[in-house]
Amino acid sequence: MRPAMRHLGLDPGLTVTGWGIVDADRGRLSHVANGRITPDPKLETSERLNVLRDGVLTVIRRFKPELVAIEEVFVARNPGTALKLGMARGVVMAAAAAEGLAVAEYAARVVKKAVVGVGGAEKSQVQAMVRRLLPGVEIAGDDEGDALAVAICHAHSADIERRRAGVGA
Amino acid sequence: MRPAMRHLGLDPGLTVTGWGIVDADRGRLSHVANGRITPDPKLETSERLNVLRDGVLTVIRRFKPELVAIEEVFVARNPGTALKLGMARGVVMAAAAAEGLAVAEYAARVVKKAVVGVGGAEKSQVQAMVRRLLPGVEIAGDDEGDALAVAICHAHSADIERRRAGVGA
Repeated sequence: MRPAMRHLGLDPGLTVTGWGIVDADRGRLSHVANGRITPDPKLETSERLNVLRDGVLTVIRRFKPELVAIEEVFVARNPGTALKLGMARGVVMAAAAAEGLAVAEYAARVVKKAVVGVGGAEKSQVQAMVRRLLPGVEIAGDDEGDALAVAICHAHSADIERRRAGVGA
Repeated sequence: MRPAMRHLGLDPGLTVTGWGIVDADRGRLSHVANGRITPDPKLETSERLNVLRDGVLTVIRRFKPELVAIEEVFVARNPGTALKLGMARGVVMAAAAAEGLAVAEYAARVVKKAVVGVGGAEKSQVQAMVRRLLPGVEIAGDDEGDALAVAICHAHSADIERRRAGVGA
């Protein structure tokens, strides 16, 4: 029998990066922790990015997830926004790689399908379902809920792959 | 009399990141080094970003620049391209900040004006002028030339500020 796998979901942003950690034991989910990294906006962009990196490294070293997942950016229509999103995203991906962790990316509709059951679900439905799937969880903002949603999605697909391979339940 | 200031220019990209280092001693430029960081494209994106970070840290630790400059992205029309550019850019900015270095950003036309004398100069004119300003320099590709150009631009503006402040020449 395999032990539970620990999944870290990230919702990277320069202003707020949400993170959420979920354990999955053959389909059974349990909430571990969640939070947000909010670098001081008065700092220079390069320093904010460095604070973001340190924050992600602290979470990884404290909770020791085996897997990291990020939602694929449904690319902003505005290239300036895409550039900023990219900066935060690049930094958190490099931080995960520095700790030897692979990063899985999921399209928004795959995350919605995994959490709500419908690819076209509303954002509010995703947030509500995350609370239902992880009883007792306290979520300070949508970025934390989104991070937990992508962690749940990753746990589901890891579980499906395990079943396909004939391992576990 | 102040010693020469060492300027690191960077042209960040996921495929190729050019870097160039220039010393400036009251308006006199001298070439120190230049090169490119090219993470193996067969690696996962997160690992490529981590290789990029390590490459930038190696350059900074070896040459010990006091200043880092990057060209502001003349944002790609394509948000997907902007996202990728942003990822590489965020990683190199965070690496500079981790080494305690501030990062200055210059608009493309400011770089062109500093190097060629005209904000609307062609890319090829910038490359040619970099070679003229730094005699003997060997440049393997445009990304290295662009990195040297932004280092030169940074050296010029630092020099102008020094003169304004009544220091130096």
